[in-house]
Formats: sequence, structure tokens, C-alpha cells
Amino acid sequence: MRGCRKVNSITERLQSLFPDMVEWRRHLHRHPELSYGEQMTSAFVAGKLAEWGIEVRTGVGGYGVTGTVRGGRSRGPRLTAALRADMDALPIQDGKSCDYASTVPGVMHACGHDAHTAALLAVAKMFAENKDELPGDVRFLFQPAEEISPGGAEPMIADGALDGVDRVYGVHLWTPFPAGIVYSAPGPVMAAADEFVIHIRGKGGHGGLPHQTVDSILVGSHLVVNLQTIVSRSVDPTEPGVVSIGKFQAGNGFNVIAETCSINGTVRSFDDKVRETIVSRMERICAHTGEMFGADIQLDYKPGYPPVVNDKAETERFFRVAESLFGAEHVQASPLIMAGEDFSYYLQCVPGCFMFVGAGNPAAGIAAPHHHPMFDIDESAMLQSAQLLASMAVSYLSGSSR
Amino acid sequence: MRGCRKVNSITERLQSLFPDMVEWRRHLHRHPELSYGEQMTSAFVAGKLAEWGIEVRTGVGGYGVTGTVRGGRSRGPRLTAALRADMDALPIQDGKSCDYASTVPGVMHACGHDAHTAALLAVAKMFAENKDELPGDVRFLFQPAEEISPGGAEPMIADGALDGVDRVYGVHLWTPFPAGIVYSAPGPVMAAADEFVIHIRGKGGHGGLPHQTVDSILVGSHLVVNLQTIVSRSVDPTEPGVVSIGKFQAGNGFNVIAETCSINGTVRSFDDKVRETIVSRMERICAHTGEMFGADIQLDYKPGYPPVVNDKAETERFFRVAESLFGAEHVQASPLIMAGEDFSYYLQCVPGCFMFVGAGNPAAGIAAPHHHPMFDIDESAMLQSAQLLASMAVSYLSGSSR
Amino acid sequence: MRGCRKVNSITERLQSLFPDMVEWRRHLHRHPELSYGEQMTSAFVAGKLAEWGIEVRTGVGGYGVTGTVRGGRSRGPRLTAALRADMDALPIQDGKSCDYASTVPGVMHACGHDAHTAALLAVAKMFAENKDELPGDVRFLFQPAEEISPGGAEPMIADGALDGVDRVYGVHLWTPFPAGIVYSAPGPVMAAADEFVIHIRGKGGHGGLPHQTVDSILVGSHLVVNLQTIVSRSVDPTEPGVVSIGKFQAGNGFNVIAETCSINGTVRSFDDKVRETIVSRMERICAHTGEMFGADIQLDYKPGYPPVVNDKAETERFFRVAESLFGAEHVQASPLIMAGEDFSYYLQCVPGCFMFVGAGNPAAGIAAPHHHPMFDIDESAMLQSAQLLASMAVSYLSGSSR
Amino acid sequence: MRGCRKVNSITERLQSLFPDMVEWRRHLHRHPELSYGEQMTSAFVAGKLAEWGIEVRTGVGGYGVTGTVRGGRSRGPRLTAALRADMDALPIQDGKSCDYASTVPGVMHACGHDAHTAALLAVAKMFAENKDELPGDVRFLFQPAEEISPGGAEPMIADGALDGVDRVYGVHLWTPFPAGIVYSAPGPVMAAADEFVIHIRGKGGHGGLPHQTVDSILVGSHLVVNLQTIVSRSVDPTEPGVVSIGKFQAGNGFNVIAETCSINGTVRSFDDKVRETIVSRMERICAHTGEMFGADIQLDYKPGYPPVVNDKAETERFFRVAESLFGAEHVQASPLIMAGEDFSYYLQCVPGCFMFVGAGNPAAGIAAPHHHPMFDIDESAMLQSAQLLASMAVSYLSGSSR
Repeated sequence: MRGCRKVNSITERLQSLFPDMVEWRRHLHRHPELSYGEQMTSAFVAGKLAEWGIEVRTGVGGYGVTGTVRGGRSRGPRLTAALRADMDALPIQDGKSCDYASTVPGVMHACGHDAHTAALLAVAKMFAENKDELPGDVRFLFQPAEEISPGGAEPMIADGALDGVDRVYGVHLWTPFPAGIVYSAPGPVMAAADEFVIHIRGKGGHGGLPHQTVDSILVGSHLVVNLQTIVSRSVDPTEPGVVSIGKFQAGNGFNVIAETCSINGTVRSFDDKVRETIVSRMERICAHTGEMFGADIQLDYKPGYPPVVNDKAETERFFRVAESLFGAEHVQASPLIMAGEDFSYYLQCVPGCFMFVGAGNPAAGIAAPHHHPMFDIDESAMLQSAQLLASMAVSYLSGSSR
Repeated sequence: MRGCRKVNSITERLQSLFPDMVEWRRHLHRHPELSYGEQMTSAFVAGKLAEWGIEVRTGVGGYGVTGTVRGGRSRGPRLTAALRADMDALPIQDGKSCDYASTVPGVMHACGHDAHTAALLAVAKMFAENKDELPGDVRFLFQPAEEISPGGAEPMIADGALDGVDRVYGVHLWTPFPAGIVYSAPGPVMAAADEFVIHIRGKGGHGGLPHQTVDSILVGSHLVVNLQTIVSRSVDPTEPGVVSIGKFQAGNGFNVIAETCSINGTVRSFDDKVRETIVSRMERICAHTGEMFGADIQLDYKPGYPPVVNDKAETERFFRVAESLFGAEHVQASPLIMAGEDFSYYLQCVPGCFMFVGAGNPAAGIAAPHHHPMFDIDESAMLQSAQLLASMAVSYLSGSSR
Repeated sequence: MRGCRKVNSITERLQSLFPDMVEWRRHLHRHPELSYGEQMTSAFVAGKLAEWGIEVRTGVGGYGVTGTVRGGRSRGPRLTAALRADMDALPIQDGKSCDYASTVPGVMHACGHDAHTAALLAVAKMFAENKDELPGDVRFLFQPAEEISPGGAEPMIADGALDGVDRVYGVHLWTPFPAGIVYSAPGPVMAAADEFVIHIRGKGGHGGLPHQTVDSILVGSHLVVNLQTIVSRSVDPTEPGVVSIGKFQAGNGFNVIAETCSINGTVRSFDDKVRETIVSRMERICAHTGEMFGADIQLDYKPGYPPVVNDKAETERFFRVAESLFGAEHVQASPLIMAGEDFSYYLQCVPGCFMFVGAGNPAAGIAAPHHHPMFDIDESAMLQSAQLLASMAVSYLSGSSR
Repeated sequence: MRGCRKVNSITERLQSLFPDMVEWRRHLHRHPELSYGEQMTSAFVAGKLAEWGIEVRTGVGGYGVTGTVRGGRSRGPRLTAALRADMDALPIQDGKSCDYASTVPGVMHACGHDAHTAALLAVAKMFAENKDELPGDVRFLFQPAEEISPGGAEPMIADGALDGVDRVYGVHLWTPFPAGIVYSAPGPVMAAADEFVIHIRGKGGHGGLPHQTVDSILVGSHLVVNLQTIVSRSVDPTEPGVVSIGKFQAGNGFNVIAETCSINGTVRSFDDKVRETIVSRMERICAHTGEMFGADIQLDYKPGYPPVVNDKAETERFFRVAESLFGAEHVQASPLIMAGEDFSYYLQCVPGCFMFVGAGNPAAGIAAPHHHPMFDIDESAMLQSAQLLASMAVSYLSGSSR
């Protein structure tokens, strides 16, 4: 079977690029850049693509980079499959002591985007070197700013990144899943991820004279405790919902009651009614926690990425392709993932599938969750990611429905 | 009576220095310096004292400055009265828009130490100009770092600031009291003021995956709420006690569960048993709030200034002197003040009296509490402070027991 | 088709018994009995069955009643289908003012068991009157004590209620679903429902002297607040989990600090790991909330009913039978129901299916949730229940796999 | 000196009545009666007084009893001193196992009123037996219902109990103070004691479906936690203030979300401004805790007894009399007592003094606080109480100002 040969060929060629992936990933890991500041990462990617003779666009919706490899072997109508990697890091201090630990204080690739970029670079190089055999065109989307909302996907789409694209595929390495296993599911797989900022204004004063003040730290602390009741009591227990506070900043001195307090957080949901319940409960809890203490509380709720919703047929393709690549025992249905992803915007434009590649390896000490200071990956997951992305593209472009 | 003449003379001379006090105070108000950073303030004070021909020591226990005026009229054994002013400002952003507002972002004289310094400078100038009439010696103590513990009083004492001193007096301007009225009381008048720092270590992670984390902000918020029960339930309601949190810092990003959280605060008490109860309850609440959530909580409790305890006879002197200066209707018994003061250390060495001078003037819009961004004083309180300090010294040195 | 004729016949015969169902249900509604006290209800049921010539056993595992109708038309091996209704009421004061409102203070059929019993009585009467046409045997299970754990199903099974039974079916009227629609789903449909009792011992004393006491009501209140964090933070958001407090009793006088406090509640889950997480977090929160305040807290956790897990093939039968009875537009896949049911024990013994019959009718004012003082049902749901139960039995007994 | 002889004589005569006091107290301890239900206690007292030939009035403002002994030895204008004892018990289950433990389930003399009554009976008997020597008249006030508000003092006064009375004295045994020591102080000595009742209405429902309910137990628990912030943050730390919850009742079943929750408690203060702050904060916290959760909260605040304010001259009499009776080392200035007492109403009518008699004896295991299930007294305190009351009356009636 030609499909099989092609897949084997892809598998082997990417295998040979694995040392490059590791080198690229570790380079990026040492030099992480925050969302919307991916200047060097973007230049690194664009330089590589150009070096390999790939048609490159830079500055796509910011620091976005796209490359296109036009295949030589299409028979029917010319089709284009897009493959996407995200490039940004997080405001976390790297806690690792290995030689590829972050060299930037307070910034770290704690979500694996370095590996996404490295894996997709390998796919690009492989297709560039074998474009005559490619039965269609492949567009590479190197996206900035996935970690914050609004993210980089929308401006890239607005800037034409998906023009002419028929299908889109992406992967996320996932350390809670074991390396060696890949996952996806039809319908919603990743959450709507919203951001909120809460500003509390009390009345500052002397730490020894609390009765002359409105203690904004106490108000903020009660607020955090009160917000727990949304998920524990107001969200239908059969529907996923999360309200998390990520940042709490108030006060300057130990003996001065803080006049103001600011709180930042995120809400996750898969269902619009749940999202509405959460927002409406948050508004009520903020308003009345403030009034209870005589403080003013402003809630600025910023709706973020919609859920990532996979196309049914493309998810069936995933199961076929992945089982053929890795064996059925290495392919599983994905559970709902509470994280958000602006890959959702690509899927609102064209059908496609977002996939997870297990990257944890507890036996080797790789067990920290995403966004953790000790986060790391089993690098073999990059190879699986590259193989999966490349094979999904070839499967679609070759018109395979098997 | 000579005493009366002297008092009148002091009153009038200081009256004539009032424009200087205002100028000096506003200069210092524009250029506030944080505790242990009072370089310019210290130089300003030392420069003035030297300019007036006063014997100056600089670098006394840090940025402390002492000056001594040796009187020419002593009959009996040579006595020395010390008068003290503190010089440091606070990490608060000045909220005023007047022309003497702080020019230093985030730093402000929000407790009146600028006025204490200006008033004591006026007393020093007045005594320097009239030293022949002075029936003993006067030591001026310009102290840095009253706002934080350990403060500046102890190192100044260790560095000899009280050597040869027989009595010590100090004032604090107080805006919750109306300008025109002065206050003191025998025994404890100001609280023991301790500092604490709490470090919480949870387990960081992805904001959408709380079940993989230990949310240190939630732990910190529960802790703040739990600590309220110490004063509401565990402290004898007839005994004053305060537990205040001044600072709460945790997290960097809205969508990352914070691994650590740090909390700073202060405890106020007048009674050792109450202090012990508070510390023991804090230890218990910290330990078990942490264990409840699987977080580690470290409490670093730093005992601070002891209570300010006035000498009984010197407080009686205060009532005599103040009633003579301002009339009995302008002198009141002070309530307990929950603020702490390292003036307590001077009083542990020599007898003396710490006094309060009303500095609020609500009709003129001067009503903000101490440590508030809108803090200001009725400047006439400086004149009263100067008159009170000078007269207390003269009363003691002249051997008056009336 | 014979099946169709039979179904039509069942439909019509039960239709004619609807006035009886209403009368029986209202009688039971007026005279509710608490779990394990269903003496009159049991006698009422047994009397009816005997009156209709049905083979009756009383005192089955308590106040349980079984009846058996032996059919006359079996061809193959003799099969037995069991149909179950529960009979107990709840400790809730009826808030309705209609003429069939509860006459027992503080006791009320607030979950629809009266209607379950009435519907199953109608099925029994119908089969008894038409037993010659019945292609097998039908066992009627009138069960006491479904509302509390341990419930009545286990002792009935232990007492032989399922002996010889091949399949078991049951329904629950459900007011959150609209009358006219029926629901089920394969696999888990109802939650594991556990009970817990928490005893707090503080130190009683005078309400004006809190520092001499350990305030058990404060400890209990903190505990209730702290328990919210289990679902909000520790349970995987994609997995259902509930921790509810139903009862909080402490104190006798307004001015006496309560020495003890008792709290009762329930935990719901579908997944063993979630259940373990909840129990382990509860233990930790109880222990450390107690120690924080110097109180002793005892948690008595009573694992309750396991989840109700429907047989896959029998659920497929439900969809066939229900669509045939009511039309496909009146049959839906059931969501997960957080309530527990000891029907789970029957399903651990023999395959079967538990089904929901919509009983809400908001337009008619029937909208109160189960266990609410205003709970009522659209009585037409009884007819649907009876038709569904009878048809499931006939479908199975006639060997239909269509 | 006659005064001394008299005092000695009183001391000795009461000493000889001590076995009677013990017997009467233990009888009353075995048969406690709740406030407003003191039928038997009242009859017991009235019977004794009548038996001793004392002029008795029963039914004074309820179960109140007064007796009057008219002295034979008055020289100047005829004066009357009133002595008061309270008679009611508390809704607490006696935890003692001694032979005089309460025989009434759930009712107990846990505040020492049994001993107050016994001691005053002894004084009455002694004066009745020695009325010729008594230099004026003595009125005995046996008051019901001191433990609840409105209490028994007001109706007794309204019913003429103080008619013709010139001074009033009362004692309270106090186990936190050591037996052998007596205490009082001029001005406020006992707190204003108010009562409040809070009714919360949420929305009941199924314990597994919290999102369909408003959980009144959760609302109540948050309320209890929120109320702690009044004392910890809003009351001036130098002013005593207490907010205590004594009773929290909600729910009937472990698996039903409670529709309503009721909370009872007490507020203690000495200063009107503090009381107003507490009430206004309670109103705000109740209103907004309710609105935050969508529950309705009604606060019914019942102002109770005013503070007990001792007359200055009569307190000086106490110090003279007590030091003469017990020696100066056994007389101390009383701290503020957070408990309330409707003795305040007598003191609003006539000058007088309320005194405390130490009744604790930790070495003998008598250490439980008032209102505690293990409360007991060192019975020797009854003798001191009787001696103090009798001597205060004689001191006043004999016109002694020494």
C-alpha cells in the first residue's frame, strides 16, 4: 500500500531528524520569550525555514511566521493542510538545574511550546526535502502568544494565515499523559478559557488601628474563599467548570492596612450555560463581598478562547492514522482537558483535529504538571508529534478516507 | 515666678520660629526617605545643628544624629534631659496634590515624622540661642527607622545616645486627636508592636487543573480569614489585641496556580499574656491551615517594640507643664494607642514621658488616619510639640516638682 | 406484529387504570411514612396485591412486599422479570396546600415514591387481570427505605426478593425533566451516594467570655466553608463530585457557647478515584480544622449506595421499547444524575435498566426540585411509568431482541 | 467600735448557717428551673421566708419573691437596703456525676444562681433572728429570669420591689476568680448584653443537586465566619466588644439541602458607640451575605440589659467593708466582666454596688467556666457572699461612711 510506504518513509525520515529537534528545543528552552515578545524565537524559526528553501512570511499578525511547501504529486484538486505550533513561554522561574534550563530570570517554557516549535520545524524540513512526493500543499503556522488572551491565532488568521487552507491540525505535548500514547476525541476537547481581573478599593490606614480602615486584604481573602462556592454549589456537578485565582497582590508594608488589592484569575468551561452561571455568580459575589465590608470591588471579565471543538471526520482520521503509526494500544480517547487553547479559532474557520501526545515519564522523574517550575518533557514525544502531524497532512492531501 | 517667665519666654521664642518649622517640615515632606535610608534627612538635620553651633554627632547607630546644648545656669548637680524626634517615612504613595506633596514615588511622610523633626530642630535652635539661661544640658535625639523593627532607637542607645541622660521626652503628632489638645497617661500608652512573615509553599500548576496543585493563594486567603478568629474569640475581650495583615503577594500569571504566597503583618498588644495567646494561636492556625490543604506554612514571628510605658512622676510633670502652657481644658488623659513606638527602649533606660499632640482638623479637611495616602497634619501642632518638649526639659532641669 | 398488539393493549389497559393510580398516589401522599417506618404503606400494597389474587410475600427484608404473577403463555425457558417501586417518604414539612397534602407533620413524599408505588400497583393489577397472555413471570418489588443508607434493597435481596429473577427494571419520576419525555443511558446513570456524620467537641462556656471556650459553632462553620474546597479544587473538574451538608445542629441558648456541634451530609460520585479523593480530603480537613481551633472532630463516613450502572443490552431495549411506546421524539439519553439509588444493588445481581420519566410541568406550576417542600409531580408521568415498566417486562419475557 | 462588733457578730452567725446554705443550694442544684419557669424555686424561697416570720410577697413581677425585715434599732431617718439574688437555671445538660447533680434533663444551675439564692436565704434568716439589732430595714429580692432578656428585674421593679428602697446590693459568684477573694469596681463592671436571632431562607432541594438550590447551611456558615470580622476589624481594639453565636439549627436530613437556617447569639459591649458599630456591621454583613448567595436573611436584634454601673460611693463602701471582713489581701479591683446582668436595672433606680465573689478552686477541680456543663463552685464562696451582703446592708443602714 502506498499510504503505508509513505507513512513508513515519513516515520524514518523524521526519526533521523530527532537529534535536530532536541537541539532546537533545548536552544528555545534556554531562551524563552513571553507572549507577544517572541522576537528571537520568530527569527530563529524564519531563519530555519528560509535556510531550507521554504516560502516564508514573517510578521504574520505580530511575531507569527508561516511557511508553505508546495507538493509536486497532487492528482485531484489542489488541497492545503495547515500544521500549527505555538512559540511563547510563561512568566515562571525555571526550577530545573539541567544544562538547557532557562537563562532568562522569571521566564520559562513551562508548557512545551518549545517542543511544539521544534517538532514542527522538523516536519517542515522533512517536507521541504521531499516535496516532490507530497500530494498537496502544507502550510506551517508558527504562532506567538498562545498563553494569553487575546492570543496570537486570531491576528494570524486575520492576516491571512489560513487563506487557501482546507484542514488544520495541531498537537499539544501533555505530561499528565504517559509518553508513547497519543489522544484525541471528537467534539469539545479543550475548555473555554476566560480571564478576569478584580480590583478592590478599601480604606488604608495604620495596622494597629483596623477600625479606622477597610482592610482590602481581608476583603480579597474573603472573596477568594467565597468564589470557591461557585464550583462547589452553583455549577451542575455533571458539567466541568473551574474558577482559579493566579495572582493576588496587595500592600506594601507589614504595618500598613492596604488600601487596594488586585486579583487575577481564569475561568474554564465547556458549556455556555455553565459559563453564564459562573460569570453571574462572580458578579454577585464580588458586589456583595465588597458591600459587606464597605469596599468597592470592580470585576473586569475578559472572555477568552472558545472551546477547542474537533471535527468528527478528522478525529476519525486521527484514530486511523495514529493506530497505523503507533499501534492501537498506543492510541486513546482523550478526556476533556480543562486548559484553553486558541487553536479553537483555527477550527472555527476550517475543519481539523487537535491532538495530545503523552510527554510524561514519571519513572524518569518527568512528572511535573504544565505551568510548574519543574516542568519538563520526555523529548521522545516530539518525534511522535512530528510523525503525527506529518501523517495527518499526508493522509488528508492524498484523499485517504481510510 | 521664674518658671512661669521661662515658660512664657519659651512659648514666645518658639512661636517666632514657627515659619521655620513649616518650611523645614515641608522640605522633608517633599523628600521623604524610607527607614534605614534617611541619608539626606540626617544630613539636613546635622547641617542645621552645626550651623547653629550645636555639638553634633552623626552616624549614631546608623543615620542617627545627636546634638547637645550645654546650659549655663545650673545650680545643683548637672542634669541632662533628652528630647527625641524620629525621621523616617513610609512605603506609601502620597495621594495629596499640594505643593509640598512627596516627590518620591511610593514614599511618603504618612506618620508625621517630618513634623517631629522640624519641631525638635526649632527647639534645638531656640536652646542654642539661649543656652546661658538653660538650667542644665539638653540632648537632641534625631532617630532613624522608627517605622520598622528592629528600629533605630536600640542602635542609637547602644552607640551612646543616652549616655549621661537623666530623663527622656518625646511627642507624637496624632491626627485622630483634634489640634489644640495634648495627651498623655501614666503606665502603658502605646502597644507592643510585633512583625510577622508567613511563607506558604503549595504546589504550582495549570490554572485549569486545580486538582493537580495545592493552591497557595487559596491557602493564604483561608489563613487570613482564620486569623480573624484570634481577636474575635481567643483574646480576652477586655484586653486590647490586634492582628493585621499588611501585605499579601502571590502569583505571576492569571492562569498559573501560584506555588508560593507570602504574607506580612503585625501584632499589637499591651499585655504579655495576650501576646503569648496571639502567638500561640497564630502558630496553631498556620500549621493546621497548611496541613489541611497539604501546603507548608512557615511563620517567622519577630517580636518588635515593647509597650511604651510612661514614668508616673514624669507623667504628672506632663500634666502640670501642659496645663500651664495650654490651659487645663487643652490637656487630656490619653487612651491606649494601638500603634507601637520604639521610644519604649529609651523609657526602659531612663524615666520619661511620651506625649501626644492632637494634629487633626476635620473642618480643614485634615482627617486621614496615620499611614493613609491622604495623611496630613494641622501644622500648628508642631508649635505645640516644640513648646511641650522644651518646657518639659526646662521643668526637669530646673528641678521643678511643681 | 404481536409485540405491537401487546404493547397497544398494555397501553390501553393501563390508561384505564390511571384514575386508580391517581387515587392510590394521593392516598399515599396524604399518609407518608419515613424510611424503615413504612408500616401502613406496606400493608396498603400487600392488601391490594392480595385483593387482586396475586401471590404476596410481606415482611421481605423489613416492610418490603413482593408479589409474583405467573404468566400463562411462555414458550421457551421460563423467564422472570422484576419491576421495582420504592415506598418511603422524607423528613420534610409539606409546603403544599392542596387536598392531598401530607397530613403528617414534618414528613412528606418529596421524591415521588408514592407515585412509583401507585404506578407499579397498576401494572400488577393489569398483569394479574391478564396473566394468561403474559409470556413469563413478573415479580413486583415494593421496597422500603430507599432514602437512607443502608437502604431497603439489600435486605430484600438477602431475603430472596430476586430469587429466580432474570432481569430487573425500575423507574424514577424526575421533575427537572418535562413530563412526556423518558430517559435512560447505558453504564453509570446515578451516583454513588455516601453519608457522613461529623461530631465536633469544643469547650462550652459563657457567650460573653469566648476566650475561655472553644466555640464549636465557629469550628463547624469554618468546616462547612473549608469543605467547599474539595469540589472546587481537589476533584478533577471533568469528573462529577458533590459534598453537601444537610444538617447542622449546635447549641441550646443564645448566650452559651456550644460545647458540641453535629453535622450530617452526603457525598456523590461516579468514579472510585474521585470518591477516594473526597474522603481523604474530608479526613484531612476535619482533622486540621479541629486542631486549628483546639476542638476534637470525629468524621464517621458511611459508604452508601454504589452507582446505578445500566446493562448495555437492556438499555438498548429501553430505547426500542420507549420509542415504540411514545415516539422517538419523547425518548432521550439521560445525563448523569447526581442522586443515589439503591436500585444499584439489584443491578449488581441481575442485568437490567433504570429509567427516568419526566414529571415536571413548569407551565402548571410543577417545578420544585426533588426533596423540596413544594415538590409535586405531573401525575400523567405515572401512566408513562406504568406503561414503560410493563412493556419492558413483556419485551424481555417474549424474548424480543428488537 | 460597734461596727466591728456587729460585723464580727454577722460573720459568726452566718458561719453557723453555712451547713444550711449548702443543703439549700444542693437542693436547688438538683431541681433547676429555666428562666420564667421558677415555680418550685419561688415556692421554696417563699416557704422559708414565711417559716422564719418574714413579711413575704410572692408573684412579684412573675415568680419573684420579696421579703422585708424591719429593724428595731434605727436612730435617724428610716432607711432600706435591698439585697438581691437570682434564681433561674440554664438549658444545659449537667455533666457532673456528684450526688447533687441536676435531676432535670437538659437543665442545670450552670451559673451559680442556686448559691446566690441559698446565701441570701441565710442572710434573711440571720436578720430575721436578729432584727432588733438591725439599724434599718432590709428588703430581700429573689428574682427569676436573669439569664434571658427581657429578664426578671424590670417586672419586679415595675411591681414595686424597690419601693422605699434606698440602696441595692448584689453579688455574683465567679469561678474564674479564686475562692477567698472578692472584687468590685466603680463605674461599669458588667457588659450590655443583647440578643439576636437570624433567620436565613435559601432554597431547599436534593443534596446531590446543589446547583438547583440555595444552601442555607452554607450561607449560615459563611455568616458565622463573616461576623468574626466585626470584633477583629471594626471594633476599636481598646474597647471591649463580643459577638457570639450560641445556637445554629438547620436541616432535617443528611441528603436534603436545608431551605432555612436559624442562628441565635449575643452581643456584649460597655460603650454605646461600640454597640452601634456592632449592630450596623451585623446588619450589613447579614444583608450582603444573603444577597451574595441569593438567600434572604432577617436579623432580629433585641437590645438587652444595659451595663451594670456601680455607684462610686457605694463601691468605696465595698472596699471598706470587704477589707474589714476578709483583710485587704482578699479584696481586689474587678476587671470588666463581659457577661451581662439585669442588676443594671436596679442600679438605674437606686445607688448601689454589684460585687463578685471568687468561687473557683482549680486545686479541687473546680475550674469550669460559667455556662459550662461541668460548672461547679467552691461552696465556701456562699458564706463570703452572705457575709458581704449582710455587712453592706448594715454598713449603709448604720449610716457608716467609714
